Amino acid sequence: MAASILNTGVAVRRESRLYFYASSTSGLAPSYLQANLIVLPSRYAADFRLLCQRNPVPCPLLAESAAIGSYKELQSHIDGIPGSRIASDIDIRFDAPRYHVYKDGKLIQCGIPDIARYWTEDHVAFLIGCSYSFENALTLAGLPPRHTEMKRVVPMYKTTIPLCAAGIFTGGHYVVSMRPYRATDVELVRNITRPFVATHGEPIAWGWEAVKQLGIKDVAVPDWGQAAVEPDGTLFVEGGPFVPVFWGCGVTPQLAVMSANLKGVVMGHAPGHMIVLDVREEDVFKV
Amino acid sequence: MAASILNTGVAVRRESRLYFYASSTSGLAPSYLQANLIVLPSRYAADFRLLCQRNPVPCPLLAESAAIGSYKELQSHIDGIPGSRIASDIDIRFDAPRYHVYKDGKLIQCGIPDIARYWTEDHVAFLIGCSYSFENALTLAGLPPRHTEMKRVVPMYKTTIPLCAAGIFTGGHYVVSMRPYRATDVELVRNITRPFVATHGEPIAWGWEAVKQLGIKDVAVPDWGQAAVEPDGTLFVEGGPFVPVFWGCGVTPQLAVMSANLKGVVMGHAPGHMIVLDVREEDVFKV
Repeated sequence: MAASILNTGVAVRRESRLYFYASSTSGLAPSYLQANLIVLPSRYAADFRLLCQRNPVPCPLLAESAAIGSYKELQSHIDGIPGSRIASDIDIRFDAPRYHVYKDGKLIQCGIPDIARYWTEDHVAFLIGCSYSFENALTLAGLPPRHTEMKRVVPMYKTTIPLCAAGIFTGGHYVVSMRPYRATDVELVRNITRPFVATHGEPIAWGWEAVKQLGIKDVAVPDWGQAAVEPDGTLFVEGGPFVPVFWGCGVTPQLAVMSANLKGVVMGHAPGHMIVLDVREEDVFKV
Repeated sequence: MAASILNTGVAVRRESRLYFYASSTSGLAPSYLQANLIVLPSRYAADFRLLCQRNPVPCPLLAESAAIGSYKELQSHIDGIPGSRIASDIDIRFDAPRYHVYKDGKLIQCGIPDIARYWTEDHVAFLIGCSYSFENALTLAGLPPRHTEMKRVVPMYKTTIPLCAAGIFTGGHYVVSMRPYRATDVELVRNITRPFVATHGEPIAWGWEAVKQLGIKDVAVPDWGQAAVEPDGTLFVEGGPFVPVFWGCGVTPQLAVMSANLKGVVMGHAPGHMIVLDVREEDVFKV
């Protein structure tokens, strides 16, 4: 099936489940929410839920397994949207295009098409909002993110901003994504992304002074993704018309989980290979 | 009326309203939630609500005016608790023992018993959780906060940890409160305070290394309150059996509001003179 007709959440999930669709979900099913996936042994579920609740900007929790071991029913964390509306007929073990699997903190499977043989009755799945939603809104407003224009991966940075501790998840830090904008457009960019509260919302910081405040050593050396470029393709540097704008990033909860030395089998989607949901931006965000 | 019989939220509110009760509410009506009050012109309400939602640990929003201009009806932000249960027959203009009033960012009234003549149809009130709830729990567990044992005011510090920006509220920082505990008791203290999610919950950081991480220059010089002391009354310093434990503090949203150069009349309770609610800890927290 061609990617071009994967224009709803359920179409992408079916394709991922039945035909081993294994590409990035970026650009698929416009307006449908896409989610980061984190699957944990149940003894860590309460602490992880609390980590998200205490740090909602980098860790916006959309939904979780309706019960321990459930991969078909979701409990919603979005006000006014029941779990059945977030994704009907979901199977979390199959519906992301690719998965990573970790055992006792060590990567044991990379990019596999399903996690059926690793899922146990003791696992709990969490779905976390991603930045695709507000990127669509920026593009529609004539302010497309630089990395999408240049067909690159958004640069992401580990910061020195501590997460609020939650149970076993201590010592974590914000991860941020960065998009360059003209300083004169920053207020508009803030306004456009502000309503997307369940998918990181407005920027947490902006301008060259924010780089130091966030503890980022060099904007040209991201910890994940690719360095940003100027419109002419040269490296994005201080002094030009554009300034860095930083948002909370869904890598934050992944890094917190990976740093926590959890025992047992932990799973997640492979980067860029998200679970696409049934719920649409206009159902969730009052833009 | 003697303070000793002010043992319910409604009793404290009635006393504050009718008889100009004007003392600190600390220790009154045990187990009833007490709230910080912030009253804003309506044009700032959406941004302030978002500030709380994006920074729930230092700014736990309990309730707000049910409509612009309403001082008698509350809309709840506590899951499963309607506004009428949070405080019945409340009058936000009278029910705190003392108030501060600011105009265009300048303090114009200090510690007045009511705000009836400053309240307008354009004002919106916000009630923010306070740390008295988890302090009761610590005391009941045999770990009373040092400042209550020594009859002092808890030390509070401005930190370098940035708040997630929200509309007009940019450039804010976490304010933290500090209580010394033995390093061996920190995990127990974390466990005891963790359920109090609507009143700052568990600590955000602890230990002497956290002092530097939070950007606090000298624990002996708090920005508000009084420096902590050792059990023998000498100044609390590094090297003894106790370590500093830091929680999110309700001064955070007050400082964010005061730093935002808001126009018009802003009001709040006077420090320590909280609005006592009808809802009890056991109704809100699953301890």
